[in-house]
Amino acid sequence: MFIDGLVLDATSRTPMHRQLYTSLREMVLSGILPGGAQMPSSRALSVRLGVSRFTIVTAMDQLIAEGYLRTVSGSGTYVETIPNIPSSSPIAVTQEVNHAEDDHIRLLSKRAQKLYWRDSISLNKSARYLHMSAPDHRLFPFQAWSKLTKEVLSNIESRVAYYRDTDEPSLLEQQIAAQVAVSRGIRCDPEEVVTTFGAHHAVSLLTELLLDPSDTVGFEEPGMSAVRAIFQSHGCHVVPMTVDQFGADPSTLSEQNVKLAFVTAAKQQPLTIAMPAKRKLEILFWAAENGSIVIEDDLGSEFRYLGRPIPPLKAMDRDNRVIYIGAFSMSLLQTLRIGYMIMPRKLAIQCRRLIQVRYRAMPQLTEQILARFIEEGHFTRHLYKTHRIYAKRQERLLEILHDKFEEVFEPPQFSAGFYNLCYFSDPSIDENRLLTICNDRGLGIEQLSYYYRSKKSPKSGLLIGFASSTENEIEIGTTILRQCVKDV
Amino acid sequence: MFIDGLVLDATSRTPMHRQLYTSLREMVLSGILPGGAQMPSSRALSVRLGVSRFTIVTAMDQLIAEGYLRTVSGSGTYVETIPNIPSSSPIAVTQEVNHAEDDHIRLLSKRAQKLYWRDSISLNKSARYLHMSAPDHRLFPFQAWSKLTKEVLSNIESRVAYYRDTDEPSLLEQQIAAQVAVSRGIRCDPEEVVTTFGAHHAVSLLTELLLDPSDTVGFEEPGMSAVRAIFQSHGCHVVPMTVDQFGADPSTLSEQNVKLAFVTAAKQQPLTIAMPAKRKLEILFWAAENGSIVIEDDLGSEFRYLGRPIPPLKAMDRDNRVIYIGAFSMSLLQTLRIGYMIMPRKLAIQCRRLIQVRYRAMPQLTEQILARFIEEGHFTRHLYKTHRIYAKRQERLLEILHDKFEEVFEPPQFSAGFYNLCYFSDPSIDENRLLTICNDRGLGIEQLSYYYRSKKSPKSGLLIGFASSTENEIEIGTTILRQCVKDV
Repeated sequence: MFIDGLVLDATSRTPMHRQLYTSLREMVLSGILPGGAQMPSSRALSVRLGVSRFTIVTAMDQLIAEGYLRTVSGSGTYVETIPNIPSSSPIAVTQEVNHAEDDHIRLLSKRAQKLYWRDSISLNKSARYLHMSAPDHRLFPFQAWSKLTKEVLSNIESRVAYYRDTDEPSLLEQQIAAQVAVSRGIRCDPEEVVTTFGAHHAVSLLTELLLDPSDTVGFEEPGMSAVRAIFQSHGCHVVPMTVDQFGADPSTLSEQNVKLAFVTAAKQQPLTIAMPAKRKLEILFWAAENGSIVIEDDLGSEFRYLGRPIPPLKAMDRDNRVIYIGAFSMSLLQTLRIGYMIMPRKLAIQCRRLIQVRYRAMPQLTEQILARFIEEGHFTRHLYKTHRIYAKRQERLLEILHDKFEEVFEPPQFSAGFYNLCYFSDPSIDENRLLTICNDRGLGIEQLSYYYRSKKSPKSGLLIGFASSTENEIEIGTTILRQCVKDV
Repeated sequence: MFIDGLVLDATSRTPMHRQLYTSLREMVLSGILPGGAQMPSSRALSVRLGVSRFTIVTAMDQLIAEGYLRTVSGSGTYVETIPNIPSSSPIAVTQEVNHAEDDHIRLLSKRAQKLYWRDSISLNKSARYLHMSAPDHRLFPFQAWSKLTKEVLSNIESRVAYYRDTDEPSLLEQQIAAQVAVSRGIRCDPEEVVTTFGAHHAVSLLTELLLDPSDTVGFEEPGMSAVRAIFQSHGCHVVPMTVDQFGADPSTLSEQNVKLAFVTAAKQQPLTIAMPAKRKLEILFWAAENGSIVIEDDLGSEFRYLGRPIPPLKAMDRDNRVIYIGAFSMSLLQTLRIGYMIMPRKLAIQCRRLIQVRYRAMPQLTEQILARFIEEGHFTRHLYKTHRIYAKRQERLLEILHDKFEEVFEPPQFSAGFYNLCYFSDPSIDENRLLTICNDRGLGIEQLSYYYRSKKSPKSGLLIGFASSTENEIEIGTTILRQCVKDV
């Protein structure tokens, strides 16, 4: 009888009923117990195996629930007939086979096959000094955040716990509307604010919302390659909009049917240019004339170390042609992944619907904590504090660049944000090789050429970060940098 | 002279330099200060306005930085020439005009215009009793979570603070790989785990990764409408796969070129059927024969109140045809928005790249907290605790359904998950009207017909939740429900 092959181990930590369940299941799957065979009664099994009837019944019930056995009322329990499957079948215990792996790649969609893959130095986690785009995570106000986490959790409300009603602005959206009025001079209603998982997510949403695959997008040249990749990966036609000394020039888009333009106005990335009022008006005028939309990514422009921050394009936008993208990646923590958009009300409604279809909901728990964080004034205090600290670090970096890199770089310009753009005095320098060396030695700097479509910049230069390094670390980092320049 | 119109208020809380800046900017924008005009010297302005030179210089520097004024070396400061823009221009201070709003809708992409909008009762935040899909947020282990938040924040590491290296599994992905081995019988490497913003996000990612707009998707009928909407909104052709008493039947997909099928195997949504082993093998066989992929959404199947949880399809998948989707929405909190997929390694690599392009990174802070939560055993303890509590609530609901709803519903079946599916004895009941009344009175139940493509089910029924309501709340809720049935 089949149960002769059945061995249960009374000394095992696995319960007897579980051992029996596993053994019987394998017997059904392997065909040792053939489909249609009647099972002995639980009493008979109990006697033969020397275990309690409870053990037998527990195991059999689970096998019935999972469909390996079935009961026929008044007749008994039978083995289920499992389909007769050839040897290369799912139940054959085989190693993962290579052709299956290749199969998986063949399954990719056309878009996924063409996916542009960013492979940039600054994402390298080994970057210890002079990171060009990260805030100093050691300054994150963890005590205030912990306290608010505890507070929100201990009074957890259904509006935080459940998927919220998407037609109504969240507490965070209300707080953001109030905050941008003060910090960026943008007047908007909470209904016009839509929270996102950061700036990249905002662009991904807008691409789905506004662009069909054949549409044309105007994109800064040089500009943020990783954002360009989002438009490209959606099949959009991306055309360059030249950045001159005033920032992105919309006149270089003329004659093309551009549905949407992406700009960084208050602090151009990577050239750090503050767009003057005249150019801002030209862009708004261009958008109104062409019926186009302008996406403004305002990253890091809260941080300007001389005078006040430059207002964004959105602050001058009376005709609702501009969609503003903000995030807390630079002002709080890169991997908090909370950002927001400010957009015309009707588009905001559609965008909330898109979010519901794609994600069901946004993470209310983290959003509630951030909302309370802003509400209690912690955010403004944190901005002031980090601004003051980063200003000193920027000053220290500038000093060192002036004193010790005079023959390497052209005199560096005043900077906003988290890095200084330094042009090489010697145009023949091998930028790629230098960057590889810098990377190997733990420097989180980037090269200017990365931001050009062709990966070639008219003038070569480095983006040297200061915000995430202390003054001491800036000294260490720049000493390493000097050696890298020598060794290249 | 122009400055005669300039009034500064020494009693205002706005600093004098800020008042001056604002006034001068408005004068440039409105043309009162014409382009090309030379500005008086700071000394002269200081005397005429009766404010310090510091005030004047601060205001002028900011205006120069923003491009309203420009300095000509050795000559002085001049007003910038602002483009001459007609009256319907961005700088005209007008009310938002309606035609602009309509314009915005015209800007939507073709996909966004066709976006299916879920408008379901269970999303209503007023649902107080018998919510059919939510865990009880009051049971969320807030003390452990708070403690871990504090711990993670006070030892914040660069791997949590920065965008992480996507080629390497995160701590959470490692913890999930270990967890699913124990809880769901799935053996996988951390490299095969990809964290997501929940199950809907997982499906959204897979759709982009694997499907082109014209591809055909097999979808359970009845099935989760909100997930069907994701495939539909990507332009995929969605064909029904009939759910019989054994769950989704792949033979109903024959003759169609189905690239991907979506199933809920361990607990079919909405019919709560546990798929028997035979059917599981049929599905795996179908996928291998057709070169298709099966997406398995395993929502809520950790919660089974008799015997052990039913293993997922993925636990039988030896040929890597199944992509498993899990989430912490039901086991922890709906709006935590953390989920995961288990998928073939090569697809996992591509999926991480897609995530990087679309979102740049996932939220490491929350993920780290959850990873530590699992690592310390809190998650398993929480599952046991809530399982025990929900089992009692389910028992209470079943009792009440048996005792007080015998003429309303057919005898309810044993249930897994968070709700009981109750078929009406009277087939002529006006389900839609009943649901509206239930909604108005705070019940979070759903109707079976919602899950059918045609919004008509062969038998009408309700999905009555028990997990998020205490036994007392279940009594209140069912009393309300009885009255609703009477009033319909």
